[in-house]
Amino acid sequence: MTQKTFTVAGGGPVGALLAIVLARHGYRVGLYEGRPDSRVTNIYQGRSINIALSDRGWTSLAAIGVGPDAKEQAIPMYHRAIHDVDGSLSSIPYGKENQAIWSVSRGGINRQLLDVAEAEPNVELFFEHRLIDVDFETAAAVFSAPGDREITVEADFLFGAGGANSKVRRLAHDLPRFSYSQTYMPQSYIELHIPANPDGSHRLEKNALHIWPRKDFMLIALPNPDGTFTCTLFMNQAGDPSFESLQERSNVERFFTGNFGDALEHLEDPVGTFMAKTASPLFLVQVFPWSFNNRVGLIGDAAHAIVPFYGQGMNCGFEDCAELNRLIGKYDHDWDAIFPAYENARKPNGDAIAELSKRNFVEMSDLSGDKRFQLQKKIEAKFSDLHPELWTPLYSMVTFSPEVPYAEALRVGDQQQAVMERIMQLPGIENDWDEQYVMDQLFELATETFGERR
Amino acid sequence: MTQKTFTVAGGGPVGALLAIVLARHGYRVGLYEGRPDSRVTNIYQGRSINIALSDRGWTSLAAIGVGPDAKEQAIPMYHRAIHDVDGSLSSIPYGKENQAIWSVSRGGINRQLLDVAEAEPNVELFFEHRLIDVDFETAAAVFSAPGDREITVEADFLFGAGGANSKVRRLAHDLPRFSYSQTYMPQSYIELHIPANPDGSHRLEKNALHIWPRKDFMLIALPNPDGTFTCTLFMNQAGDPSFESLQERSNVERFFTGNFGDALEHLEDPVGTFMAKTASPLFLVQVFPWSFNNRVGLIGDAAHAIVPFYGQGMNCGFEDCAELNRLIGKYDHDWDAIFPAYENARKPNGDAIAELSKRNFVEMSDLSGDKRFQLQKKIEAKFSDLHPELWTPLYSMVTFSPEVPYAEALRVGDQQQAVMERIMQLPGIENDWDEQYVMDQLFELATETFGERR
Repeated sequence: MTQKTFTVAGGGPVGALLAIVLARHGYRVGLYEGRPDSRVTNIYQGRSINIALSDRGWTSLAAIGVGPDAKEQAIPMYHRAIHDVDGSLSSIPYGKENQAIWSVSRGGINRQLLDVAEAEPNVELFFEHRLIDVDFETAAAVFSAPGDREITVEADFLFGAGGANSKVRRLAHDLPRFSYSQTYMPQSYIELHIPANPDGSHRLEKNALHIWPRKDFMLIALPNPDGTFTCTLFMNQAGDPSFESLQERSNVERFFTGNFGDALEHLEDPVGTFMAKTASPLFLVQVFPWSFNNRVGLIGDAAHAIVPFYGQGMNCGFEDCAELNRLIGKYDHDWDAIFPAYENARKPNGDAIAELSKRNFVEMSDLSGDKRFQLQKKIEAKFSDLHPELWTPLYSMVTFSPEVPYAEALRVGDQQQAVMERIMQLPGIENDWDEQYVMDQLFELATETFGERR
Repeated sequence: MTQKTFTVAGGGPVGALLAIVLARHGYRVGLYEGRPDSRVTNIYQGRSINIALSDRGWTSLAAIGVGPDAKEQAIPMYHRAIHDVDGSLSSIPYGKENQAIWSVSRGGINRQLLDVAEAEPNVELFFEHRLIDVDFETAAAVFSAPGDREITVEADFLFGAGGANSKVRRLAHDLPRFSYSQTYMPQSYIELHIPANPDGSHRLEKNALHIWPRKDFMLIALPNPDGTFTCTLFMNQAGDPSFESLQERSNVERFFTGNFGDALEHLEDPVGTFMAKTASPLFLVQVFPWSFNNRVGLIGDAAHAIVPFYGQGMNCGFEDCAELNRLIGKYDHDWDAIFPAYENARKPNGDAIAELSKRNFVEMSDLSGDKRFQLQKKIEAKFSDLHPELWTPLYSMVTFSPEVPYAEALRVGDQQQAVMERIMQLPGIENDWDEQYVMDQLFELATETFGERR
């Protein structure tokens, strides 16, 4: 058998992981990236350099066999550290004891995965090769290469792994019966920075994701191994307050002092940074199909870019790779079967995590505001401890239950919400929530809804 | 005051009507169409040549002052003529007596509106001018003109009125924070033809919209003034049966004989036509914003292409024009106010009619199937006759109540549906539906939901 060839367009974490998967199944892979090699040139300045990885990501990496190295540089975050407007701190755990989400440097994991890919004898890496065109019938691709050359790369198959702005995806817009949407959120974001202490330690608690939830906007901070925090301010692009309304330096100063007082002593020149930067937009991409003529496919953000509020973007992309890894085995390299099986399996999950990630802005940004909502979460957590076979909270299903597909998590979560709305209507629930009768009633409703799972 | 200028890109019915609106407000308008002048060359062969116009369309035309001529060539359709699979006929009225939707030739109304536009001293028409590029800052546009020339047209403002595939809309994809979606339906369609009788009369009842509802697919027929009917077969693109599955001539013959027996004696070579034609896709377009820098706008299908199942596409486009007509007066030609007011007023209605048009495929294609659904409609109609102040059926709100915006029709329709679900759960409703207690209960629920409107 001739060795089949793949072009992977996009050398980010998902493209690199996909190249590893394909190479280990015996394919010859050309991995093409438009930007310079991030292991040589730092190309991440000003971009979001932290991402959250959780069980789905680790499970997928492990299934592919790229696990432990990546986790060494990651920092577990066991809870949300909530910074109230008056400076008081509270804590909401992410899951059970020892369950954490992990702060990972996007650049770091990308470099690690590129190293692993490069070590594969079947993989060849090409940087500064910008994709120009794709033939969706033949999987041939045209790249603009260094030295102003245009080269055509023939291959048996091609994957677009170029992220939210994937050129393959945008070229596909012109294909017949290709459905696509690109939807902007009202919020935009800028990045801020908290430096390390002189001794290299963290100025805020290291093993937490810090949130300053202010309802219509919020600041978050994720820890880095070097003692710094990468912070992100999410706020409406227009309206009041917004990136557009806050133009005067004095207003920006008042905004930070009034809302993030306890962060001000840590943040490095937030007002100057705010004034100097243009806020970046947030958008979702949804498309179908994810494959064309069983020759060309889309993967990762190219197929399903989402917003960062559930910390699941890269996890979802890694799951795509793990699913392909499984399907190549299952269908014994028959790509006429693999492509349809891949998109049918992953599309509903991509849509579900898109929906969940949109909803979670409200949840995160109002963490300290809506007391009834917090009470509901507390009741759910208690019930889940008592009856784990009947109830896993939605956040835990998404984050700590890789065996539950996103689409099922969304569906079950909506059913749980309907049950909890009835519980929250019980008269006096604010005072009685810890009483046995509340748990009894919840048990009855949950059993009715989810059956006896024992 | 210097006379301000507009470029209107797209010379279909909506573009022509918009040119009339703008010219009558004193603007100088260049109306550019990529295809040849349809009044000279017949360019509609093989395209859907019939559309439904209803009260919103007529009201909008009247508000602009282009009413009566267009209606002369239109044929009122007072009811749905339902052709059952056994050949039996039944009838479902569209509204109250004398309420009709109107079968209009797309080409005919386009030619009439172009004539009216051309008669305006402020309008200049350019055919065979294909839009290539737009400067969204300055409203300048580049067209490819006859003789292989490229011309740049400067103007103060520009509207994209080029329909579902509008070049302006597609160019806008690359603008920052522009949300867009193009969503294909599972169904595609082909057109078929019923010729006139030798004496020029109609072979089927003239003043009806004929439907052969077969649940997963359907055939419809709209009357033309020359005695012919334009028929459209809607069916899934893939699956069984589908345009893809029906390839063998013998299968296509069996499909028509088995499903449309009573139409076969009228249709002109349906099997040959089916075999020869490629089915056309159906898709929806949703975008936001509808305007850019208060210089460039989108209108009609360019902003909100929908599917044809509610017969509202052109009505909605004409409403856009009527709304602009109103806003130019209200804001006294201040386009910094008009563009935002226009998109804020029309976007929710565009989204609502998109949703309604999608849902209506099921309603139309299952007209003779779901008996409970038919019963529900019958109860609603009876109640609406008794209490018109409390209840206008959804179809009537959309079709015969131009004073009710689409978005309100959708919202009220969903509330009505919730009420009717409770009524349909009454034990024995199948037999008792005509009893007084059903009307009493419906009155109670409707009053509770919609209040005392008297």
